[in-house]
Amino acid sequence: MTAVSPLAPARFPKMPEVTGVTLASHACGVRYAGRTDLLLVEMVAGTTAAGVFTKSLTASAPVEWCRQSVAKGRARVLVVNSGNANAFTGSVGVASVKRTVEKAAKLADCRSSEVYVASTGTIGVRLPDEKITEALADARAKLKGNAWADAAKAIMTTDTYPKGATRTATIDGTKVVINGIAKGAGMIAPDMATMLSYVFTDAAIPADVLQALLSKGVKGSFNAITVDSDTSTSDTLMLFATGKAGNTVIKDAKDKRLADFKAKLFDLLLDLAHQVVKDGEGATKFVAVSVSGAASKRAARVIGMAIANSPLVKTAIAGEDANWGRVVMAVGKAGEKANRDKLSIRMGGVLVADKGEIAEGYDEAPVTAHFKGQNISIEVDVGVGKGKATVWTCDLTHAYIDINGSYRT
Amino acid sequence: MTAVSPLAPARFPKMPEVTGVTLASHACGVRYAGRTDLLLVEMVAGTTAAGVFTKSLTASAPVEWCRQSVAKGRARVLVVNSGNANAFTGSVGVASVKRTVEKAAKLADCRSSEVYVASTGTIGVRLPDEKITEALADARAKLKGNAWADAAKAIMTTDTYPKGATRTATIDGTKVVINGIAKGAGMIAPDMATMLSYVFTDAAIPADVLQALLSKGVKGSFNAITVDSDTSTSDTLMLFATGKAGNTVIKDAKDKRLADFKAKLFDLLLDLAHQVVKDGEGATKFVAVSVSGAASKRAARVIGMAIANSPLVKTAIAGEDANWGRVVMAVGKAGEKANRDKLSIRMGGVLVADKGEIAEGYDEAPVTAHFKGQNISIEVDVGVGKGKATVWTCDLTHAYIDINGSYRT
Repeated sequence: MTAVSPLAPARFPKMPEVTGVTLASHACGVRYAGRTDLLLVEMVAGTTAAGVFTKSLTASAPVEWCRQSVAKGRARVLVVNSGNANAFTGSVGVASVKRTVEKAAKLADCRSSEVYVASTGTIGVRLPDEKITEALADARAKLKGNAWADAAKAIMTTDTYPKGATRTATIDGTKVVINGIAKGAGMIAPDMATMLSYVFTDAAIPADVLQALLSKGVKGSFNAITVDSDTSTSDTLMLFATGKAGNTVIKDAKDKRLADFKAKLFDLLLDLAHQVVKDGEGATKFVAVSVSGAASKRAARVIGMAIANSPLVKTAIAGEDANWGRVVMAVGKAGEKANRDKLSIRMGGVLVADKGEIAEGYDEAPVTAHFKGQNISIEVDVGVGKGKATVWTCDLTHAYIDINGSYRT
Repeated sequence: MTAVSPLAPARFPKMPEVTGVTLASHACGVRYAGRTDLLLVEMVAGTTAAGVFTKSLTASAPVEWCRQSVAKGRARVLVVNSGNANAFTGSVGVASVKRTVEKAAKLADCRSSEVYVASTGTIGVRLPDEKITEALADARAKLKGNAWADAAKAIMTTDTYPKGATRTATIDGTKVVINGIAKGAGMIAPDMATMLSYVFTDAAIPADVLQALLSKGVKGSFNAITVDSDTSTSDTLMLFATGKAGNTVIKDAKDKRLADFKAKLFDLLLDLAHQVVKDGEGATKFVAVSVSGAASKRAARVIGMAIANSPLVKTAIAGEDANWGRVVMAVGKAGEKANRDKLSIRMGGVLVADKGEIAEGYDEAPVTAHFKGQNISIEVDVGVGKGKATVWTCDLTHAYIDINGSYRT
């Protein structure tokens, strides 16, 4: 078995209950033996829902189901299995989703469109959905409010630790709770929703407001991370609000009374996104790449991702080599405006390159020391405008190759 | 030292002389000890020149010099050093180019604009050009026509074998020779010219015709390969024609009398490009990815490159795992039109997936056997149009990480 990532948090956070949400984990044997692989979540009537999903053109059947249902904005049940992605499984995969949804809806006495499903794991293998549908009744019997760590564990695939985060916020004077869990370690890339992440709150928030907040929050969090530039067919991020906190219902996402909730939600999304990067397959370093001076925010992000996805930058970091020339290379290949002769680079806060060449009196010793640490900082100013963005990634090590050279076997 | 790539050709080809071209290799100690690191080529008066260069926005000083000079279409001297890229070296780097060019022009008694220079190796370190200028006279004394293998060796960096190719063609009844050398193993990516490659012919071809042929030939060869998706700051491909074969001078690149020359040139470019991929850092497998059924030729190429650059596809190939689900993933993330439910995939010629799911009666055994070989074939039809393209790559192995985690040290 793979050891726990050296970048893992010291412990899973203490997560309070979210009124109106109950969870159960179950071992139904889809692929893994001796561990849970099914998560069932039930939510009270009236729960609103929002979601963002992979932009992959080969999206999985469960993703297509959720994308369609979330337009109605209501949720009662969530069913997630690990070990099989039910992606590229044709009409058989669609039928698997349908059977799972119908069984769960019947048990919870709700509409099919209020049931969300997700599957992650191997692509192209038929999902043995009968193992899931047969287990649902047993799983229901175990539903309870304080089961967040077990829930996070049940959805893991190549993850080496469960990922969770919690925040509290106030909306117009009423305290609300926000809990989130996530999974993901490989096939993690930009320009999409995310791997799998589910966030729950007891706040009362209409579905359209929830969607506006989530769509905005994903940009600086899950859409600003990359492990390996490969976009999954199953990426799903959903946000559910039970309304049980009894706060004032606010109908505009820009209303200032939602500012604290929004800030805490975005902070939680970033926390979960960072936890995914820190469990990047084979990761030993957590890398923040900040780009400034770009033509636009979008351009800054493209340049940041070119650096964060460069195998040469990532292997240099794995080798603790402060090879800033590769950062120059990555800026050059990004295809966005950059002024080579105004370009400056800082690593670990130290000015390495300035005005298109190595900084005067540059001393590599403190930068080399920085590269021996776990948290690497790369800052680049491309000298053409005011666009800024930060993205996060990890290093590329032997373990990534070991994990992915034999994933199916 | 790194062992020779298992994909290396059995031997360096026997290359005839190209009338009007003489070559010399020299050890001038730019960075490497105990090996040649300087290539000097002189060409007779009247030699025409064409070139394509990196599209990197952080292109090196030598690239900028060559791009500017080749507009005049004339060549007499080529000076290439390995070990230092003279990239991101600011005004100091520009001065290094100027001193090298002026010294070489003086020795050969030609114009500065007829001297081409190239540097590859570490980025951001000042080029000790005095080592080059001081060595040029000694190198000149060694110039001779039959020194192609030594020339190919002098320009190597992380290459594990020298790369050369030769063809003969006829132009309107006259036999001409085409010789080419190349270097490159990492920082090899699409959408650019190439690493370093120089092609010489004794044919008489005007510079504008030469340029038209080269610009077209690069598309299906050097621009159709990738090792690691990282585009170099120094990529240069040049073609020189001495005119000594005495053939009819043809003034239109589309003239049918150039058809044989064009075919042989393109074949030679593809041969050299394949040799670069086969020396991809850490490569153990040579992979051809053919995409058909795309909306356009361009779309097919984008999808092919998404597959060829996917770390998950490349690590699966390294692990000899016929994980076709990752091919589906890569098609999905490419961003070009694809019909998931018409998608078909062949590996090693075997139909693996068809109409959006695993092929009926699919037997993995012959595909697994294919993956144990050195030459891997992946064919994908995305089911939307008639666009086709083939690209080539290699697998991603532990050795890539070893080589690039400690390149500078």
